[in-house]
Amino acid sequence: MLNFNYSIPTKVYFGENQINKLGRLIKKQGSRVLLTYGGGSIKRNGIYDKIVEILNSQEISFFELGGIEPNPRLTSVKEGVRICRENNIDFILAIGGGSIIDCSKIIAAGYHYEGEPWDFFVGKARITNALPIGTILTISATGSEMNGNAVISNLETEEKLAVSNEILKPKFSILDPMYTTTVPANQTIAGTVDIMSHVFEQYFSLTKEAFLQDRLAEAVLKTCIKYGPIVVKEPENYEARANLMWASSIALNGLLTYGKITDWATHGMEHELSAIYDITHGIGLGILTSHWMSYVLDESTVDKFAEYGVNVWNIDIKEDKLAMAKKAIAKTKEFFAALGIPATLHEVGINDERLEEMAQKAAGNRGLGSFKKLQKEDILKIYKAAL
Amino acid sequence: MLNFNYSIPTKVYFGENQINKLGRLIKKQGSRVLLTYGGGSIKRNGIYDKIVEILNSQEISFFELGGIEPNPRLTSVKEGVRICRENNIDFILAIGGGSIIDCSKIIAAGYHYEGEPWDFFVGKARITNALPIGTILTISATGSEMNGNAVISNLETEEKLAVSNEILKPKFSILDPMYTTTVPANQTIAGTVDIMSHVFEQYFSLTKEAFLQDRLAEAVLKTCIKYGPIVVKEPENYEARANLMWASSIALNGLLTYGKITDWATHGMEHELSAIYDITHGIGLGILTSHWMSYVLDESTVDKFAEYGVNVWNIDIKEDKLAMAKKAIAKTKEFFAALGIPATLHEVGINDERLEEMAQKAAGNRGLGSFKKLQKEDILKIYKAAL
Repeated sequence: MLNFNYSIPTKVYFGENQINKLGRLIKKQGSRVLLTYGGGSIKRNGIYDKIVEILNSQEISFFELGGIEPNPRLTSVKEGVRICRENNIDFILAIGGGSIIDCSKIIAAGYHYEGEPWDFFVGKARITNALPIGTILTISATGSEMNGNAVISNLETEEKLAVSNEILKPKFSILDPMYTTTVPANQTIAGTVDIMSHVFEQYFSLTKEAFLQDRLAEAVLKTCIKYGPIVVKEPENYEARANLMWASSIALNGLLTYGKITDWATHGMEHELSAIYDITHGIGLGILTSHWMSYVLDESTVDKFAEYGVNVWNIDIKEDKLAMAKKAIAKTKEFFAALGIPATLHEVGINDERLEEMAQKAAGNRGLGSFKKLQKEDILKIYKAAL
Repeated sequence: MLNFNYSIPTKVYFGENQINKLGRLIKKQGSRVLLTYGGGSIKRNGIYDKIVEILNSQEISFFELGGIEPNPRLTSVKEGVRICRENNIDFILAIGGGSIIDCSKIIAAGYHYEGEPWDFFVGKARITNALPIGTILTISATGSEMNGNAVISNLETEEKLAVSNEILKPKFSILDPMYTTTVPANQTIAGTVDIMSHVFEQYFSLTKEAFLQDRLAEAVLKTCIKYGPIVVKEPENYEARANLMWASSIALNGLLTYGKITDWATHGMEHELSAIYDITHGIGLGILTSHWMSYVLDESTVDKFAEYGVNVWNIDIKEDKLAMAKKAIAKTKEFFAALGIPATLHEVGINDERLEEMAQKAAGNRGLGSFKKLQKEDILKIYKAAL
């Protein structure tokens, strides 16, 4: 097990009606609030009205930035920074999923930085200060509600890049599973795949002696496998929504990463797809995952895939390891297909036109991933297999 | 899943040589430090010297309270409060296992309270303020390094009682698995049983829909089952010590409790034993656990024990549920026996003389536990079965 520094300071208020704590929670943090949200589903399902009612009743001043995109854009970040500066905002309340939260984190950091927020993503500047943020989660997927990560898309440069910083961790997050019962099936599915992909990126690791972390990771995977299909059929199943919501936070709050080398190759490959084609992140991950698994399966990785098969998919331990590994990968693919994830990149409008360029960008100068390091040619083969 | 409020603010510095961060960590918290420790093993294995060297090199003033007992006593708490007040202490550094940390927490709270610290335990006063504390963990067992719990023994009243308070959570904990390599086998074993018992108290629950939490709990149990026997044979096995150390923290930092009704009957019964006979807590738990399991096994609990058998002990799912449950309990008992836990209360010097009195105290006015509520007569039967 590698040395690690554990810090998960976000307070989480989990369950029905936890929104009632919102006024008290905000008052600890600030008095002039920016509300951030997306396309307006929170206006249709009543969450927005409830929040406004609470803020008004507590006499908390607030301003708004709506319309933040899935794959949130640098332009939205800049708009948010402008609003914060003009109105002396001292706290940001993100209402939505990972896109809204990620965008809010960079608005929070950008507020204290004179230059372009994109500088944080290209190594030109380091985040050293940020406005405090809180979140009200409405979709189970990215885990952004409990970590310091943010991913932003720059349409001009066709880049989608990530930063991670302790300062960006939300002060509090309200996780009410009821809020996710109105999420449409396609987004619910994409979210479940995103959670599983986060676990895979940490589970398939060169670190062999983090036994506890691996068993914790399997716990999250089993939860997604159990409840993923249930929420598609029964969107209002509270037990299923609650387990998936908590799984999304646990999957990427650090717990599964501490003490391990992690991979993140599949995410790296997917970010190139959604940077250019603006596809749903979880769908891109779902298409790529089994192809990544098949590509990196070899003598050095077969034990881990076999372990995955036995512990997660209950594959018979008597078969030879390679057969077990292949069966585990096939099970993963079947599960995603049964959820309704498209099987190919073609199905989401991606052809072979820009694969080379994306493979080059994903590989960068140093290659991608660590479980098995991928160079441009490797990535290109994975993209092509997924076409 | 029940509603819950998640808060695990303790920063953990895990791994070899993390002690080198100590000076910086303390300076964030205070300038006049009380070191607390136990019987002196930290003086024999060099940890004490290293800490003193760091404090001296950073010019941090410190005072000392050594000799804190296993099953830490109210008298030690009072002595600690006296030292803190006389020397204007502003930070407590606990070096040791759960006993040292628990004692330090109540010293920290007692410092700000005019009355008797025992008032916190008998409902006469609430903890509302405490000095900040940090810990350097030297034995994997209680999880006190990441939570707000403290258990103190009052020899005068022959009581061993617990409190839990957010304010008592350590600011930081240094977890270096190397520090546990010199822990003797009997204490290592008791620690492993303590970790497993913490999991059982949360796992065997009336809450049936906290699927994720149950799988996380099984992850911790599997870790103890894998590495418990290894550390007995190979005390210096870093991988095993590291996994057990992190398991001890995860087992009782809240992660397995959030969203669930928990039981704590076995702990309640054990506290009566160690309050009077001053036995090692983990040994008492090890003796009682399988008897508690057998006693509470019935139609309403059989499913959970069967699930435990399948998921933790790989018991064949084809047998009938009662047989599976009984096998799981037998496996637990065999595992503890193989670790070297005594089989009976007689072996640790407890006879039937005061069983009635202990059963009465454990049951209190409202009975004990929740998975199956135990009254005095139930507890007495469990004690007698364990004799």
